[in-house]
Amino acid sequence: MDIGFVGTGSMGAPMVRQLLESGHHVTVHNRTRAKAEALAKEGARVVATPAEAAEGAEMVITMVADDGAELAVCEGPDGILASGPGGLHCACTTLGVATARALAERHREAEQAYLSCPVFGRPEAAAAGRLWILAAGPAEAFQRARPALESMGQGVFELGDDPVAANALKLAGNFTLMAMIETLGEAFALGEAYGIEPQRVLEVVNTSLYGSHVMEAYGKLIAGGDFKDAGFAAHLGYKDARLAQAAAEAGPVPMPLLAVVREALAETVARGRGDWDWAALGGLARERAGNRS
Amino acid sequence: MDIGFVGTGSMGAPMVRQLLESGHHVTVHNRTRAKAEALAKEGARVVATPAEAAEGAEMVITMVADDGAELAVCEGPDGILASGPGGLHCACTTLGVATARALAERHREAEQAYLSCPVFGRPEAAAAGRLWILAAGPAEAFQRARPALESMGQGVFELGDDPVAANALKLAGNFTLMAMIETLGEAFALGEAYGIEPQRVLEVVNTSLYGSHVMEAYGKLIAGGDFKDAGFAAHLGYKDARLAQAAAEAGPVPMPLLAVVREALAETVARGRGDWDWAALGGLARERAGNRS
Amino acid sequence: MDIGFVGTGSMGAPMVRQLLESGHHVTVHNRTRAKAEALAKEGARVVATPAEAAEGAEMVITMVADDGAELAVCEGPDGILASGPGGLHCACTTLGVATARALAERHREAEQAYLSCPVFGRPEAAAAGRLWILAAGPAEAFQRARPALESMGQGVFELGDDPVAANALKLAGNFTLMAMIETLGEAFALGEAYGIEPQRVLEVVNTSLYGSHVMEAYGKLIAGGDFKDAGFAAHLGYKDARLAQAAAEAGPVPMPLLAVVREALAETVARGRGDWDWAALGGLARERAGNRS
Amino acid sequence: MDIGFVGTGSMGAPMVRQLLESGHHVTVHNRTRAKAEALAKEGARVVATPAEAAEGAEMVITMVADDGAELAVCEGPDGILASGPGGLHCACTTLGVATARALAERHREAEQAYLSCPVFGRPEAAAAGRLWILAAGPAEAFQRARPALESMGQGVFELGDDPVAANALKLAGNFTLMAMIETLGEAFALGEAYGIEPQRVLEVVNTSLYGSHVMEAYGKLIAGGDFKDAGFAAHLGYKDARLAQAAAEAGPVPMPLLAVVREALAETVARGRGDWDWAALGGLARERAGNRS
Repeated sequence: MDIGFVGTGSMGAPMVRQLLESGHHVTVHNRTRAKAEALAKEGARVVATPAEAAEGAEMVITMVADDGAELAVCEGPDGILASGPGGLHCACTTLGVATARALAERHREAEQAYLSCPVFGRPEAAAAGRLWILAAGPAEAFQRARPALESMGQGVFELGDDPVAANALKLAGNFTLMAMIETLGEAFALGEAYGIEPQRVLEVVNTSLYGSHVMEAYGKLIAGGDFKDAGFAAHLGYKDARLAQAAAEAGPVPMPLLAVVREALAETVARGRGDWDWAALGGLARERAGNRS
Repeated sequence: MDIGFVGTGSMGAPMVRQLLESGHHVTVHNRTRAKAEALAKEGARVVATPAEAAEGAEMVITMVADDGAELAVCEGPDGILASGPGGLHCACTTLGVATARALAERHREAEQAYLSCPVFGRPEAAAAGRLWILAAGPAEAFQRARPALESMGQGVFELGDDPVAANALKLAGNFTLMAMIETLGEAFALGEAYGIEPQRVLEVVNTSLYGSHVMEAYGKLIAGGDFKDAGFAAHLGYKDARLAQAAAEAGPVPMPLLAVVREALAETVARGRGDWDWAALGGLARERAGNRS
Repeated sequence: MDIGFVGTGSMGAPMVRQLLESGHHVTVHNRTRAKAEALAKEGARVVATPAEAAEGAEMVITMVADDGAELAVCEGPDGILASGPGGLHCACTTLGVATARALAERHREAEQAYLSCPVFGRPEAAAAGRLWILAAGPAEAFQRARPALESMGQGVFELGDDPVAANALKLAGNFTLMAMIETLGEAFALGEAYGIEPQRVLEVVNTSLYGSHVMEAYGKLIAGGDFKDAGFAAHLGYKDARLAQAAAEAGPVPMPLLAVVREALAETVARGRGDWDWAALGGLARERAGNRS
Repeated sequence: MDIGFVGTGSMGAPMVRQLLESGHHVTVHNRTRAKAEALAKEGARVVATPAEAAEGAEMVITMVADDGAELAVCEGPDGILASGPGGLHCACTTLGVATARALAERHREAEQAYLSCPVFGRPEAAAAGRLWILAAGPAEAFQRARPALESMGQGVFELGDDPVAANALKLAGNFTLMAMIETLGEAFALGEAYGIEPQRVLEVVNTSLYGSHVMEAYGKLIAGGDFKDAGFAAHLGYKDARLAQAAAEAGPVPMPLLAVVREALAETVARGRGDWDWAALGGLARERAGNRS
């Protein structure tokens, strides 16, 4: 395929290399041109504007820093939207939903197809062609883009017609990472208050709790939304949350994330669900949003 | 070994079966005697009091509902502490640190050895001999108890001389599960606001983010405590937290756990660490407790 | 003065009446014209566009629903910005800081003076001329606007040259109200768990704790930033937070705001400030933002 | 009256002085005897044990550091409970509900009357006889104690038969203070990010928002539990919470308490109550605890 690629930074450059290795023709643009030039030796053609990268290409991919940078490469006389009707734009940048929605609309007006295609993976994963790609937008556009997307990642999730869904899911995924980091930080701090090294806490938690697909098991329970058959009852979970907090009084160890789940378990019990499985905590989170599973 | 076992409920009964299958002689006691009787057919001897279970045994194991139940089987004329000096008690019950500390002291006064041995695993894991056991207490007592502990689980972690450390780590582990449940619940609610089914959110998150030992990688970063070489910068994480929150305004979707990590990322940036890896969030959690890694 | 007024809803209409009663000439515009017409009987002149309200007036005041409505009355061929150079615009709408900053810039380009003038007070206060007005922007513009502002409120706070400061302070004030509402809600729920009616909790708390300028006293302590001379030590506050949480276990009563302050008190103690006055909690909040008082 | 008083520290000493000035006979005990001796010059009789302070007195008052100190002066051969049947004990110490409940029971067994009488006020208020006293316990005991209680404070709230209610309300009151301190700290930090001094934030907030009995007004709304007639709609409050948070991104300013109320407002809107008065936030707090007002 003839592919335009805008944004050849730490993520974009290895993505371009994957495309070249798969035999695609790639025309690249980067705001700081020197970064793009480095790819010329590897077979990419370098151009001066985003519009030039898009013109004549079967599709153009963007991978830039943030919402502002994405708008900058789309708008104006040199922008992708100015490259004429019929194009296809896959935005791999992590964008906010408002920006993604606005972009989808602007492309429609310009008679260009638009896909939101944010990715999971760090630069090392990009270099190894092991990104995961979340793609959403019109099915026909997705079919056109699929070969290029598959060249860049180990898997592509198709998420329906509304481009914004892919952005929301990317953000939801990053949220789970933040939550995990904070969780580990608090768990380590608690361990340290009892003389246990963080490495040891990590080893025990990772071996004991995460070896057996626990996230999948709990995820299915929460997704199913039926908590009445308790494996581990919510009132026991509430008790353990209180005991964890009592343990944290040595030090003391501030644990704000524990505080949140403790109060949510208290609410679960106060609402008369103490005998349900403690995964009901996850059900309450959905219920707060007005969802009834 | 001759082993006493107190508490033959949904966790205790399968643990006794594992001991019997490994060839140990087991004397059992349960407050509701009928539950203990069921094990008689499988070779256990049933007795009327915790003290009788402990007397003459090389070690006694307890697995009861909570701190109050544990104290009840230890204290009084029929309790384990009344069974005379020289005994060894492994408490597998999930106990608070204050109760564990008091028990350790009481056993010392009664000239009995005490180990805290809480376990990770649900009844199915107990039935399959696949519990993970966290053991802490005097090394000599641990050596005596090891064969029995290994009969009940797929692995035993030795956590040093202070019994309380095992209880703290068990609670820290349960905290990570609660956090994961709440995280999934909020992520599902966010997905639903954009028309993505929870099962699909689970599949994407589990495949993309948790397939590659991500918890171990982040755990090592946080344990190491050096965040200056950023794989993904904290200010970008803060940006994504804000975008996730903006995405949650559709609905709206209340996300209290996201709110906690968002504020912690704000603090990370405000303290001048925006260029550090976002795992610095975990470092801040340790620092709040006065730890300097 | 000749004053234009845009937005004659539940807040705007009584503000216009105050201006008329003070002898000003007022030209009004409202998107739904009928609402503006009601004021015609009381002496206001009704016009069809925001631009007409601004043209020829010494100043134009806006009081509309939100950021979007404010932009709508400013922009376009019928907007305030189109009314020609030399004007003075006081925006009483509660605006976000980004919108206020953008408006200030747009007025500068249009050679019009701009003041942010958000108000505290509900419609009853507006009707009684008892609003409080927070004004920020160029001093010269403030001097021109002062007589009109004073006609509408019982007091005007001048907050310096940067219009955005007034918007930030308005939002900070609204935040203190939300916090108070949540605080009361949680305190009532806790009281109810012990058979105390909310009205009684309110009476006791309001009489005992808020009769003696307690907010001013604590505010001065926190503003001063010196907590070493303790009236009530932080470690005692932390103890009380834990006791309050233990009390909430009857029910249980979920108290997420208590959870936040409890963890912040834990951090205060963990950072070695247990002997400082518990107002150090407020100091920590400032410090988290990188401020060193 | 003949009154025993145990605990003559920074709060107890001025309380004893108030009793002496009102003409009561006071027998005092303090663990560190020197502190008690200072009161001898002012007319108090000093004794060696809590039991001696209680013996022969019409009532004994305790004002010690915490739950442990209270138990220490009640229990054992020298404790208040050993002073024989018929006594009356008013515990002014701030106690946890579990300790208060246990004390009430122990006094019943010892045939002594027990009142929980925690106080609001710092040492200066005690010295001026301006404490507020929360009293709960048997009505007959309260009548006996009333003259002494009135000598020590500017007001006494009678809170019914269950002593624990007074302790819960004292803790609820202290919670409102913590919440206020954290609120001010966050509001100050937000103001500082826009160049407004904390003193100025305090002045504006205190003058504009708290001059007009706002806490009472909101308290009544929340206590009443009917939010359908909106003075200020919850969806506008949610908008302002988001704008406040956007304002806090300058800096950035971490605001964990704002985060809690923001999510609660999101839940209020998600549950279909966006048109209700924003005091519905307080109603939600009660509802989370299973209360339906």
